[in-house]
Amino acid sequence: MSSRGVAAEFIGTLGLVTVVVGSGIAASRLSPADAGLQLLENALATTAGLFVLIVVFQPISGAHFNPVVSVVDAALGYRRWRDVLAYVPAQIAGAVGGAILANAMFGLDAVSVSSNERLTWSHALSEVVATAGLVVVVFVLARTGRARYAAPAVAAYIGAAYWFTSSTSFANPAVTAGRVFSDTFAGIAPGSAVMYVAAQLSGGALGWALVLLLAPIQRRDGVRIG
Amino acid sequence: MSSRGVAAEFIGTLGLVTVVVGSGIAASRLSPADAGLQLLENALATTAGLFVLIVVFQPISGAHFNPVVSVVDAALGYRRWRDVLAYVPAQIAGAVGGAILANAMFGLDAVSVSSNERLTWSHALSEVVATAGLVVVVFVLARTGRARYAAPAVAAYIGAAYWFTSSTSFANPAVTAGRVFSDTFAGIAPGSAVMYVAAQLSGGALGWALVLLLAPIQRRDGVRIG
Amino acid sequence: MSSRGVAAEFIGTLGLVTVVVGSGIAASRLSPADAGLQLLENALATTAGLFVLIVVFQPISGAHFNPVVSVVDAALGYRRWRDVLAYVPAQIAGAVGGAILANAMFGLDAVSVSSNERLTWSHALSEVVATAGLVVVVFVLARTGRARYAAPAVAAYIGAAYWFTSSTSFANPAVTAGRVFSDTFAGIAPGSAVMYVAAQLSGGALGWALVLLLAPIQRRDGVRIG
Amino acid sequence: MSSRGVAAEFIGTLGLVTVVVGSGIAASRLSPADAGLQLLENALATTAGLFVLIVVFQPISGAHFNPVVSVVDAALGYRRWRDVLAYVPAQIAGAVGGAILANAMFGLDAVSVSSNERLTWSHALSEVVATAGLVVVVFVLARTGRARYAAPAVAAYIGAAYWFTSSTSFANPAVTAGRVFSDTFAGIAPGSAVMYVAAQLSGGALGWALVLLLAPIQRRDGVRIG
Repeated sequence: MSSRGVAAEFIGTLGLVTVVVGSGIAASRLSPADAGLQLLENALATTAGLFVLIVVFQPISGAHFNPVVSVVDAALGYRRWRDVLAYVPAQIAGAVGGAILANAMFGLDAVSVSSNERLTWSHALSEVVATAGLVVVVFVLARTGRARYAAPAVAAYIGAAYWFTSSTSFANPAVTAGRVFSDTFAGIAPGSAVMYVAAQLSGGALGWALVLLLAPIQRRDGVRIG
Repeated sequence: MSSRGVAAEFIGTLGLVTVVVGSGIAASRLSPADAGLQLLENALATTAGLFVLIVVFQPISGAHFNPVVSVVDAALGYRRWRDVLAYVPAQIAGAVGGAILANAMFGLDAVSVSSNERLTWSHALSEVVATAGLVVVVFVLARTGRARYAAPAVAAYIGAAYWFTSSTSFANPAVTAGRVFSDTFAGIAPGSAVMYVAAQLSGGALGWALVLLLAPIQRRDGVRIG
Repeated sequence: MSSRGVAAEFIGTLGLVTVVVGSGIAASRLSPADAGLQLLENALATTAGLFVLIVVFQPISGAHFNPVVSVVDAALGYRRWRDVLAYVPAQIAGAVGGAILANAMFGLDAVSVSSNERLTWSHALSEVVATAGLVVVVFVLARTGRARYAAPAVAAYIGAAYWFTSSTSFANPAVTAGRVFSDTFAGIAPGSAVMYVAAQLSGGALGWALVLLLAPIQRRDGVRIG
Repeated sequence: MSSRGVAAEFIGTLGLVTVVVGSGIAASRLSPADAGLQLLENALATTAGLFVLIVVFQPISGAHFNPVVSVVDAALGYRRWRDVLAYVPAQIAGAVGGAILANAMFGLDAVSVSSNERLTWSHALSEVVATAGLVVVVFVLARTGRARYAAPAVAAYIGAAYWFTSSTSFANPAVTAGRVFSDTFAGIAPGSAVMYVAAQLSGGALGWALVLLLAPIQRRDGVRIG
């Protein structure tokens, strides 16, 4: 485990939530008349930002920015469990920091707790599907020796998942935790966040099973993704 | 023929229709005032989603997700006909499954039959052109040893074809069948679907002829695309 | 000179004008309330379509689809002048064919002459700049051994140039000729077209001079772009 | 130091400001009803244009187009300080030239001084963050031997930063200076420009420190980015 890896997970997850929350604030301010246009602006900014963050941080930490990815990474033998224990707190702390930074850059109170309730069965199902799909994308690429495509593939996946789910695809417990701390467009109320995280963990397990089905054998030239 | 290949065609086509139908529901709900903005949101989500699906599944099954592509693949000698017989049902079943999953993620009845009539000569001509172009893109790349560009090229092609045709370019009999089962933005009524499939088969034959004209010789370093 | 190359220039330019004119018709029909949204839809479809066309046809014909590119290609020694004499008529015929196909796919009369006057000095200056920039992009890449980046670079260039010029950057005499034959969003009246072509030829000469300044020496590993 | 490198920085920065200012004029004219849609059009054009400019000019000059990047480049030992002294005036002159060219292409007075005040603490913080992030992206890639990803990464970064900051992320003292000379959408009043440049220099220093933290050792196969 490298301390630079932990720092990269902290800074990268901070960057990701800054992009998600900040672009959400900008979109809702600038396009008040059309909720779809707001989501389009938010989704495009997130897609571009996530692409950059993975490109930059992949060789330093693996560019997980997501506890589900770190856990499956260890479950598949790519990473030691003690690394996961260091990564997850860094991801959560980074996510909260990103919400605070975004709030500050838009002149809002540094911390506010979201009142955005997102609690329906449709949203829960969406989070299961979105997280399972994310795990399939990341680890089928890794197990077929093509982790070099992770940046465009994961970014495009999340960009699409903003639209093909009703939950706008959080698919990430750390980011979900961070989004609690901004009472703006991309925020989520604490009660909904708990349910989202449960759905994401279920989706992660489903995705892990699908990876074993679709890519059962680790290729010898498989690239470690972190 | 590998059972993993068949599973990949099922899951990949399911994913594709989930993206097409789900993003169509989200777009029509969130941007009710502008049909162009709805199509833009639907087209961008589909482009991103298709890119990811091809990147992930290409080494497992060839990432066809489309009976026309599978049939031309066999006609050009890249794949055995018995594989096509296994792929096509998996693609159709996946497409129907994708419509059901999208309906469920947006809190709608799991199955509804589309009432969206799309039956005009302009639409039929559009489907012929769209499918011919798709076949040219996929197989000129394959026959010139550049199947590695299939993911961005096919995704960009479909993204453009949403706009340069009047039919929004289904170009895929399996996806057309799946879209019958969602009475939402991206749906198609059964009678129109039959005509679309006929046009797509004609377009596939036209595209196959154009491939033989433009890339008559299989390069020795040609990469199998599946 | 290969007859397949000429066929590729015909089909590719036909495809390019089909995308430009067809997506223009779709955009103006679907987003009647906002001219910027129409241009955004038109520009994104063109960017995606041009990317695909260059990827597919580059190894067959060089994927010029543009008389200015073919002429500069010969002037810099990449191609014989007799090839240019075969390419240019194929490009113009393809462009006209593309306008007709787009009209037909949207249920319009196959041929209509545009009444869209675009004749101002600002537009002329825009076409000079747009065409010069296009020549710089194509041939600095070629002369520095990086023609493999032509597809994303040229597509992104045209996508940007739709917006940074007042003319929406035709930058192509063949496409300009084709756009005369559709009295729709992307059309251009014959009198304006003549002026646009003159500006494009001037821009091509300026671009050629800039290429000689910026990339004076042909690298030995320079890849022929056609 | 090559005079071609200086010419490339002049032409490249001119091109960048032409894209930023020109697309801003087009967007504000064509989409008057929605400020978010204007920014979306401006951001997408800038992303595409910046990608092309970096692809084309990277092997000639390093494609900085930005005094902060040139200074950090020298501080990290990639470039001599005397080169920076030649680059920065070329960048500033190019930026002013780009504003003039954009004004002219849209039929406006060649020079006008912006009255667009952007002076708040939120904007200053945004510029610090945006510039620090830009430096991290450019130089973590360079120091990990992956400068070949600079074009898509930097373009996507700026595209995202238009949205995740409240200042729309100028992140570039030369471009900020150029934008003073166009009283249009993308302009900035002189007083605000001074504050923006101060924030950008602070952000550059912060970014430099983060690069040393995240990528402390120069890899042997590190590619010079200019």
